Amino acid sequence: MVGVDFGTLSGRAVVVRVDDGAELGSAVHEYADRVIEEALPGSGVRLGPDWALQSPRDWLDVLRVAVPKALAVAGVPASRVIGIGTDFTACTVLPATADGTPLSELLPDRPHAWPKLWKHHAAQSHADRINALAAERGEPWLPRYGGKISSEWQFAKGLQVLEEDPEVYDLAERWIEAADWIIWQLTGVETRNTCTAGYKGVYQDGGYPSADFLAALNPRFAGFTAKLGGEPSPLGGLAGRLTAGAAELTKLPEGIAVAVGNVDAHVTAAAADAVRPGQMVAIMGTSTCHVMPSDQLAEVPGMCGVVRDGIVPGLWGYEAGQSAVGDIFAWFIETSVPAAYSERAAELGVSVHEHLTSLAAAQEVGAHGLVALDWHNGNRSVLVDHNLSAVIAGQTLATRPEDVYRALIEATAFGARVIVETFEKSGVPVEEFVVAGGLLKNPFLMQVYADVLRRPLSVIGSEQGPALGSAIHAAVAAGAYDDITGAAAAMGKRTQAAYEPDAARADAYDRLYAEYRLLHDHFADGELLHRLRAIRNEAGA
Amino acid sequence: MVGVDFGTLSGRAVVVRVDDGAELGSAVHEYADRVIEEALPGSGVRLGPDWALQSPRDWLDVLRVAVPKALAVAGVPASRVIGIGTDFTACTVLPATADGTPLSELLPDRPHAWPKLWKHHAAQSHADRINALAAERGEPWLPRYGGKISSEWQFAKGLQVLEEDPEVYDLAERWIEAADWIIWQLTGVETRNTCTAGYKGVYQDGGYPSADFLAALNPRFAGFTAKLGGEPSPLGGLAGRLTAGAAELTKLPEGIAVAVGNVDAHVTAAAADAVRPGQMVAIMGTSTCHVMPSDQLAEVPGMCGVVRDGIVPGLWGYEAGQSAVGDIFAWFIETSVPAAYSERAAELGVSVHEHLTSLAAAQEVGAHGLVALDWHNGNRSVLVDHNLSAVIAGQTLATRPEDVYRALIEATAFGARVIVETFEKSGVPVEEFVVAGGLLKNPFLMQVYADVLRRPLSVIGSEQGPALGSAIHAAVAAGAYDDITGAAAAMGKRTQAAYEPDAARADAYDRLYAEYRLLHDHFADGELLHRLRAIRNEAGA
Repeated sequence: MVGVDFGTLSGRAVVVRVDDGAELGSAVHEYADRVIEEALPGSGVRLGPDWALQSPRDWLDVLRVAVPKALAVAGVPASRVIGIGTDFTACTVLPATADGTPLSELLPDRPHAWPKLWKHHAAQSHADRINALAAERGEPWLPRYGGKISSEWQFAKGLQVLEEDPEVYDLAERWIEAADWIIWQLTGVETRNTCTAGYKGVYQDGGYPSADFLAALNPRFAGFTAKLGGEPSPLGGLAGRLTAGAAELTKLPEGIAVAVGNVDAHVTAAAADAVRPGQMVAIMGTSTCHVMPSDQLAEVPGMCGVVRDGIVPGLWGYEAGQSAVGDIFAWFIETSVPAAYSERAAELGVSVHEHLTSLAAAQEVGAHGLVALDWHNGNRSVLVDHNLSAVIAGQTLATRPEDVYRALIEATAFGARVIVETFEKSGVPVEEFVVAGGLLKNPFLMQVYADVLRRPLSVIGSEQGPALGSAIHAAVAAGAYDDITGAAAAMGKRTQAAYEPDAARADAYDRLYAEYRLLHDHFADGELLHRLRAIRNEAGA
Repeated sequence: MVGVDFGTLSGRAVVVRVDDGAELGSAVHEYADRVIEEALPGSGVRLGPDWALQSPRDWLDVLRVAVPKALAVAGVPASRVIGIGTDFTACTVLPATADGTPLSELLPDRPHAWPKLWKHHAAQSHADRINALAAERGEPWLPRYGGKISSEWQFAKGLQVLEEDPEVYDLAERWIEAADWIIWQLTGVETRNTCTAGYKGVYQDGGYPSADFLAALNPRFAGFTAKLGGEPSPLGGLAGRLTAGAAELTKLPEGIAVAVGNVDAHVTAAAADAVRPGQMVAIMGTSTCHVMPSDQLAEVPGMCGVVRDGIVPGLWGYEAGQSAVGDIFAWFIETSVPAAYSERAAELGVSVHEHLTSLAAAQEVGAHGLVALDWHNGNRSVLVDHNLSAVIAGQTLATRPEDVYRALIEATAFGARVIVETFEKSGVPVEEFVVAGGLLKNPFLMQVYADVLRRPLSVIGSEQGPALGSAIHAAVAAGAYDDITGAAAAMGKRTQAAYEPDAARADAYDRLYAEYRLLHDHFADGELLHRLRAIRNEAGA
């Protein structure tokens, strides 16, 4: 089984054994054009602020380079591979012709012809209009997205193309997630997956937003959904068979099963064997994404979305998020730690992160006297406000860098607790908290989360969760398992209760969390923080 | 004329020309025992937390060493000196016998026999009792101190001696400010100065707190005021004549005039020629002390004190303060500036302060998006709450060290504006804002204050304001001038409107100040910040 994870800067292929999910070998290929933010490759045409594009050629190169390399590393002959699954960043979306040719191949000097990466943020004004109109009209899908859709998603990006380059918009017979476009390249068949259709394409209760609604945004936008393909395919389903051309590209056998496309965060649930109701998987890295299947449908304030069959068929799939987590710690290390600490870390042969962590870990809960709001990049869940900013209270002349570092770690844990409590208060129980992602490597941080959440933390047993999850989906598509739940149970890896909460520390954190909630609720209206941002933006203009 | 300024770590003598205040030469002598915080010199007896003592021998050494050296540097023969004035930190206070012998000379292994430096903070519980009882009884002097007296002052420290070492208390026939003790050494005459009697000794309307009140604190405390000497002497008055012994010590002529003792901050008003009603002198250093004469008596919330004749005879003297100013910037430099900045500063051949200042100065007002509360060491005026701590709001992943540095500078300026506005709202007009002290060396910071305060800043023309002020007082005591106002006009140095506010920046700061006031008023009740401190203290215990 081969799983391929298409990330922001590179793609990773992993060869996985069907029986038990053993990861036999892997390979990474970095994108030549990485993230295109300044100017188009080749033509050098300049891009505006907040643009972020990618090149489809880079994605194909991952298939060409990383897949054979992973097999070579694994020492597994290609002939033994029975299926391939993939996952992608999302919403990463591109305009294409009816045969799947990216418009960037035809019009390489037109910015809007290129794939827009998930973090393309130049469609904020379009998202604002969509949200305002949807709220005004009471569109039934809006509450499924915590009351707001993102500028990162399909409709905002599509509306931007229409209004800024109508010619490209008209030439785009298809508007397709990279997650589905890559499957098209492998199978020759156009499919749309339930996950991106739901979370990024606002597909709810069997349909997209109405033509009537779209026309009210812009009369020419009414027909947009015709570009979005047919009915979405179920996750873990068979998208098609590997074509001769794709077999040539990947050096895999022609005709093997290709799974329906998927999203990196959501497919990780399978890798962690956490696809049952109430298993919340937190993929903790620069930011944190929370995904959780549930048999309950509810309107959870500030969630990113709830989608039927969005993680596994038969259940509601919830997504929530914290806009910045690891990014906050990295920012702190970069901007706020004096030379004496970096020198000491070098002496000890550890990173500054590790040095600060060990100093912070030596403290009693609350000994720093601080509480912080983790809003350095706004707040997705539960406030859905990217114009918020951070607050820290309690600093004295005795406050040291390790104090602030610890307070920031705690702030992100408090932010996670707000999300968990909001789900539970909304009638969606969280039975288990499962951690995946890069921050797993910091056991102190994990223990803080266990103590703050007052619950055991389970942890994923793989460092390449998305690719493993894709391989699990491929195993289902290939018929090796009946469904994702069964495949995940056999191939997924999860250590339950890897971190247990300490009762005394949990009690101490309850007191700090109460202060966090007070600050959170006081600044949640954004009044003061929005004004500060407005002053900043005017001063910078 | 010789002025001698007794500071926290050293004493400085300055030789000043009577005609025009020209500073002809100066010399500094560092105290051998500096601040005694851990253990007593000689015996090694350990001190408790928050203790801070000094040695009287160090003070005498300043007279012995620095005074002759300053004359030598000035090239002025001692025979031409006609008077000497001194100023001291306050409340720095000691127990002595009836002939002025410090008890530390008789009982060198008893901590309570030693002089307690102004920043001895181990009498907080005694101050709390005094404040609570005074509030309960409605003592008329309490509002003269903004509703609270400090643990640093005479009564709190005296009560601590009584209750922790009653034998020393009984042996102490005198309880005397170092400011007055040094005059006793010079003249052989015991005097008490109006300034410390009022600001530190709670002497109001011709008397100390009543025996009845003191007895209610502790029956044995009833007679405390008998240790405090007679009626206070007016500032600028003649305390006595230099004795033969003191002449031998200082190498000055026997019989020259010795001025009544004084406090470093208050005497600086004369050095800045700012002793008329409404001239507020801000001595800006690690913290800021504001002193201002006025013809109005009012109860200004949060002031440190108002004392009749407390700065110059005939006027009310107001004092207010900001608990930390330069200390905040120093703390930030020490704890929060990464290696890249210190390396760049070294390349440029400037201090980190200067480097950050130049980066901060290049910004437009508000471009950092931040607002901070300057409560890193609590808030003296106008909240009188040393258990407050700092808050900063508006940080994002784009926030840089120079942003925070600038926000902290602005926070202290906002704190100063709150004080000025509180005086004016209380009916005590502030006609001119005059800056003295070490922070004068940062022109950017001065400009921020001018813009934030929306008024011109005057600046003192001397780097040794206290010693110059003491020399001015000595000139009055010697009869060279009729009064302090006249002497200050001739000898003091002030540049009016050295910094003018910029209208556009002032308008921009008005918006940030409005946010500061919101944060200030929100956190002023101390609820959240006190709980954080309590959590911290419990965790540390």
